[in-house]
Amino acid sequence: MTKSAVPSAKGLERLVEALRVLPGVGPRSAQRMAYHLLQHDRAGAGQLAQALSQALETVQRCAKCNNFSEDEVCSLCCSPRRDASLLCVVETPADLAMVEQTVSYSGMYFVLMGRLSPLDGVGPRDIGLDRLQARVAEGEVREVILATNFTNEGEATAHYIAEMLRARGIRVSRIARGVPLGGELEYVDAGTLSQALLERREI
Amino acid sequence: MTKSAVPSAKGLERLVEALRVLPGVGPRSAQRMAYHLLQHDRAGAGQLAQALSQALETVQRCAKCNNFSEDEVCSLCCSPRRDASLLCVVETPADLAMVEQTVSYSGMYFVLMGRLSPLDGVGPRDIGLDRLQARVAEGEVREVILATNFTNEGEATAHYIAEMLRARGIRVSRIARGVPLGGELEYVDAGTLSQALLERREI
Repeated sequence: MTKSAVPSAKGLERLVEALRVLPGVGPRSAQRMAYHLLQHDRAGAGQLAQALSQALETVQRCAKCNNFSEDEVCSLCCSPRRDASLLCVVETPADLAMVEQTVSYSGMYFVLMGRLSPLDGVGPRDIGLDRLQARVAEGEVREVILATNFTNEGEATAHYIAEMLRARGIRVSRIARGVPLGGELEYVDAGTLSQALLERREI
Repeated sequence: MTKSAVPSAKGLERLVEALRVLPGVGPRSAQRMAYHLLQHDRAGAGQLAQALSQALETVQRCAKCNNFSEDEVCSLCCSPRRDASLLCVVETPADLAMVEQTVSYSGMYFVLMGRLSPLDGVGPRDIGLDRLQARVAEGEVREVILATNFTNEGEATAHYIAEMLRARGIRVSRIARGVPLGGELEYVDAGTLSQALLERREI
């Protein structure tokens, strides 16, 4: 959208501009959001301003797992009920939440907060692989489970971490690929199906 | 998304919740936005918090046209170069900006900040029709141009305003319907085409 020639409120313009820091929000949706907030939800806008300031102040990274946390070490890393010999590596906090929702994993985590992406200038240090290595070097971890995405970048990241840790004699595994639960072969892509054939298990 | 069982940062949870005041933002995008801000753009998040607070403080409604303004009466309504005998009624500030971009209108505006929608409980007073009537009653306005949308609700709103003002002897017009510039008849919907036939002009 071309910049409006209308003499408009400065504060409104600044708000529209500021809303564009949100991912996936272009000039038009930013304008729509600003109008909505000022017209229909001033209370919500106030709460949003407060929540932003508060989160910026309190939310940091957990020193152990790298996930968002308000404490030096997050409650999951502090929990005595988790198996400290298992370390699951995920790309994002959302992925960690997904694994937790399965209620089938009781080990620890390491959150990369990204993935290797040389084209975007994201190298091993940017996703905390030096810290991951240090964590594993402490000796408690027996097995590292790589749960990065099955995208090109996620696969490359898993491969890189596997090489790095195997050199130190750590057991490294990758979560299984295959046809999803409830998946119909007719609608599964060829790559997934060929992988499922290749990694077939005796029953 | 079901609520995550992960013991997570309170400030983060509150931020995700607060982001949902934005139109079109569900739980998943709110989470994505919060992660993005905390991870990649803390400066932008701070600026957004500030812009929100500032806009809430400074942006009010213009006493004359009802548009957003930081002054009692906005600069457009104050301008001596605008024709005060013409009043264009639009639904939203975005519509006003679109009309201004045509650079073919030099009258004044009245922004409804909505449209009549009885099913949603939006009546004449909610879109400021009492104020519109008072504005017209001042006597300066000769013609009211209705530029509400050509949706059912926009049409009903235009109809209602036309009835209301005609009773007071004000000249009321509606912007033209028809085939859009560059429009090909083959791809224009039947309703638009039949309207264009009905409202044909001699050349």
